[in-house]
Amino acid sequence: MNGADALLKTLVANDVTACFANPGTSEMQFVAALDGEPRMRSVLCLFEGVATGAADGYGRIAGKPACTLLHLGPGYGNGLANLHNARRAGTPVVNVIGDHATYHRGHDAPLNSDIAALAAPNSLWVKSAESANEVGPLAAEAVAASYGPPGGCASLILPADSAWSETNVVGERTAPAARPVPPSNEVYGVAERLRGAARPVVLIGGSTCGERGLAAAGRLAAAGVRVLTDTFLSRQARGAGRFSPGRMMYFGEQALDDLAGVDLMVLVETKTPVAFFAYPDRPSVLVPEGCAVETLAGREGDGPVALEALAEALGAPARAAVSELTRPDAPAGALTAGAVGAAVARHLPEGAIISDDGVTSSMPIFLQTAKAAPHDWLSLTGGAIGQGLPLAVGAAVAAPGRKVVSLNGDGAAMYTVQALWTMAREGLDVTAIVFANHVYRILGVELGRTGAGEAGPAARRLLDLGDPRIDWLSVAGGLGVSAVRCDSAESFDAAFARAMAEPGPHLIEAAMSPPR
Amino acid sequence: MNGADALLKTLVANDVTACFANPGTSEMQFVAALDGEPRMRSVLCLFEGVATGAADGYGRIAGKPACTLLHLGPGYGNGLANLHNARRAGTPVVNVIGDHATYHRGHDAPLNSDIAALAAPNSLWVKSAESANEVGPLAAEAVAASYGPPGGCASLILPADSAWSETNVVGERTAPAARPVPPSNEVYGVAERLRGAARPVVLIGGSTCGERGLAAAGRLAAAGVRVLTDTFLSRQARGAGRFSPGRMMYFGEQALDDLAGVDLMVLVETKTPVAFFAYPDRPSVLVPEGCAVETLAGREGDGPVALEALAEALGAPARAAVSELTRPDAPAGALTAGAVGAAVARHLPEGAIISDDGVTSSMPIFLQTAKAAPHDWLSLTGGAIGQGLPLAVGAAVAAPGRKVVSLNGDGAAMYTVQALWTMAREGLDVTAIVFANHVYRILGVELGRTGAGEAGPAARRLLDLGDPRIDWLSVAGGLGVSAVRCDSAESFDAAFARAMAEPGPHLIEAAMSPPR
Repeated sequence: MNGADALLKTLVANDVTACFANPGTSEMQFVAALDGEPRMRSVLCLFEGVATGAADGYGRIAGKPACTLLHLGPGYGNGLANLHNARRAGTPVVNVIGDHATYHRGHDAPLNSDIAALAAPNSLWVKSAESANEVGPLAAEAVAASYGPPGGCASLILPADSAWSETNVVGERTAPAARPVPPSNEVYGVAERLRGAARPVVLIGGSTCGERGLAAAGRLAAAGVRVLTDTFLSRQARGAGRFSPGRMMYFGEQALDDLAGVDLMVLVETKTPVAFFAYPDRPSVLVPEGCAVETLAGREGDGPVALEALAEALGAPARAAVSELTRPDAPAGALTAGAVGAAVARHLPEGAIISDDGVTSSMPIFLQTAKAAPHDWLSLTGGAIGQGLPLAVGAAVAAPGRKVVSLNGDGAAMYTVQALWTMAREGLDVTAIVFANHVYRILGVELGRTGAGEAGPAARRLLDLGDPRIDWLSVAGGLGVSAVRCDSAESFDAAFARAMAEPGPHLIEAAMSPPR
Repeated sequence: MNGADALLKTLVANDVTACFANPGTSEMQFVAALDGEPRMRSVLCLFEGVATGAADGYGRIAGKPACTLLHLGPGYGNGLANLHNARRAGTPVVNVIGDHATYHRGHDAPLNSDIAALAAPNSLWVKSAESANEVGPLAAEAVAASYGPPGGCASLILPADSAWSETNVVGERTAPAARPVPPSNEVYGVAERLRGAARPVVLIGGSTCGERGLAAAGRLAAAGVRVLTDTFLSRQARGAGRFSPGRMMYFGEQALDDLAGVDLMVLVETKTPVAFFAYPDRPSVLVPEGCAVETLAGREGDGPVALEALAEALGAPARAAVSELTRPDAPAGALTAGAVGAAVARHLPEGAIISDDGVTSSMPIFLQTAKAAPHDWLSLTGGAIGQGLPLAVGAAVAAPGRKVVSLNGDGAAMYTVQALWTMAREGLDVTAIVFANHVYRILGVELGRTGAGEAGPAARRLLDLGDPRIDWLSVAGGLGVSAVRCDSAESFDAAFARAMAEPGPHLIEAAMSPPR
């Protein structure tokens, strides 16, 4: 048994059974060892940003980490943006980053890189296995570390000689640290202040937006307490049979308008809300003046348990008001985001997963699907676009029986377009929608908001994707995914219905009607 | 004038006149300011790895930095791998990395990231402009810092409020630091030891592989001294009329065989050669036992001047032996890398630039073009594949009158395939060749060399790109670049000749014949 074998045995013993890989020479031992450990499913990605985004999607759905396999500092770098998103999502991910042999590092060969320094900002844990005997124990430590709480990336650096040298040490099974639960006197204190507040709000995030937390949140709502979620969530249980909370608005001034008069904000698995970006003369912190902020559970806490305790302390009704299944009428006419949303809501099968990197096209779809069949919604947690397709890859690997719908701005989809190839290779049941508006539309909005004034021709050209227009049918077809283009609500509705009925990867280029 | 205006004025005053950009909200002021500074050419890239690779290609050809425009830590991360390559090439690059407003950072909004920590490993210089008044002076400092010597990345972090606030401070024109020249007694000492050595070798790298340095190297060769270059070079002047030195072999044992008996190695703008990767029981340092190593000029030194002085000190002939223009016969039969090389050598126009990310297909083309029309060869300096297409973008922007040929493994091309769109948009005169062998062939070789044994089915699947086969005509066409597939030497020769005759971007999918 060499270090790579010990690594795989340890990972599998710790229930890490999926690997999203883009290997290089220094990872060849790991690759070779896969044939000795059939319980590990390895998935080739043609770019590391696909591998890391897939690990994020996998972790959000499976509730346990996948590992990535990355090639030194540059390979890690290529995967960095989606690890940033994973960190913000609190998703457990174990990165295995190959490195030069320990004795070779000092020679500063061309691929030599300070992996630990690069990995630190987005990792909860970074260690290097300096010998084969260390590999297994450190891998076990990495898996435990990835759970946090809150979860995040654990980055295990694997020098080539640690992988190829013999060892008889396999890491043990480790247990994640428990999430803290607030003591009951704190819960009662919060309940009392909620009762005393004129316009309280409970803001929830993290795992609290899963089924159990939402059930408790619905009880609060039934007791008259307003519940909002963070704007961007790792995973939200939505649709029929679930409580449908409000959502923090994206733009700060809208959020503050929405929160006007709120005098108490209680945080559950989240932190004080702040604006996504700063703008001249606009506030950073999205808490109304004079509003008290209380933390019932921090990001590391067990939000669902805390919220159930709070519902009890408030004497809230035992059952929440939940959404009833409501399918919109078939959309007609221009292909707007609203029309896409209606089509998605109509045909979405129960148990579907929606991976959202749709930028300016997302919100109407989010709203339309509130009463669709029960589903999970995964949003862009860290703001680094290029997540939607990889996240869908990972979600589909984690949940073979569930339909995955991936929403993507055309600009966003281009960052990690290589994900389509992996969908084709693995036959993943993903329907990718690309909103082809041929512009970084959000930046047109932001240009004005940042006070940068009217865009001149040079500025406009940096926001424009229309020259040349990307032909998504060709791009997807070239990567093995069959695709159709729709330019009306009717054709989109029909294409989406077909995609829901046929397993395997599909791409729909939604040729968006220009905004009126 | 705001900070963004001051930045652009300072960059242009320092002769930085090209910007490869993938902006986001925090960079909107910079984008808006472009309309006030028409001397800055901005080029939109749909992925940051394209922008950074293009800046590398631009810098190698222009001999001065371009700037990149990147969106916080994730945007920098997406560009990291090609900045790693740029660092290894010694290319001057100025990164402008937008950040949250200074007062917003502490709130840790979703895109907040430790940009300075991420940028440090691949930057010579990292500073953040904490006010609008600092922007101009720091930009001037960044440009100077990017020249090194040796050159590299200077990373200027630009918080949004520093960009949007008013200022009247523009940075001054700065001068790069001079490259040191060895004192003549050292040169004479080296000359003496060269004369006394039985089998000396002079190993050259960096700018010494440009025209002036090679002319001096050719004089050494004419005096009987063997001259080799580093395996991977930022830029090598090649072809007819130039001295054609040998090259360090890629695999360590071949390099040591080639160097057998060498008793003195003189380094000029390079360092002691080491193996690209470590392998079990194989040496890391590629210097024969008992061989003395002397540094005439370090990577920071002025290699061409040092080498001229050495040629004088040796009393070498005034003129070097140079290659004569020799066009191979038209290739016929199977489409091998050798056949591609013959076609390239036959039709390459004078002044062409070759960007090499061809991995296992490159060497035969490198050898075949040694006596082609005069051209520059840019190689993969840092080992992070995905450089070939972006580098070609930058080279073409830097040298509008020169034909650029980009060599790419199919695996390598997929990393930064978005570069094709920028070629189409800008009408760049690039002919991209993709070697479609549908496998990470180099890894098949390396798997054996690392002692990992025979690949089983799981391992083989991680090296295989053939399921599904990527259709490069569709992918390129979808991104606006017309493409043709060739599966014989004859058809490739004809297609390459056509591409050389027609300006603008072309892609040739070279359907490689399987190795016999």
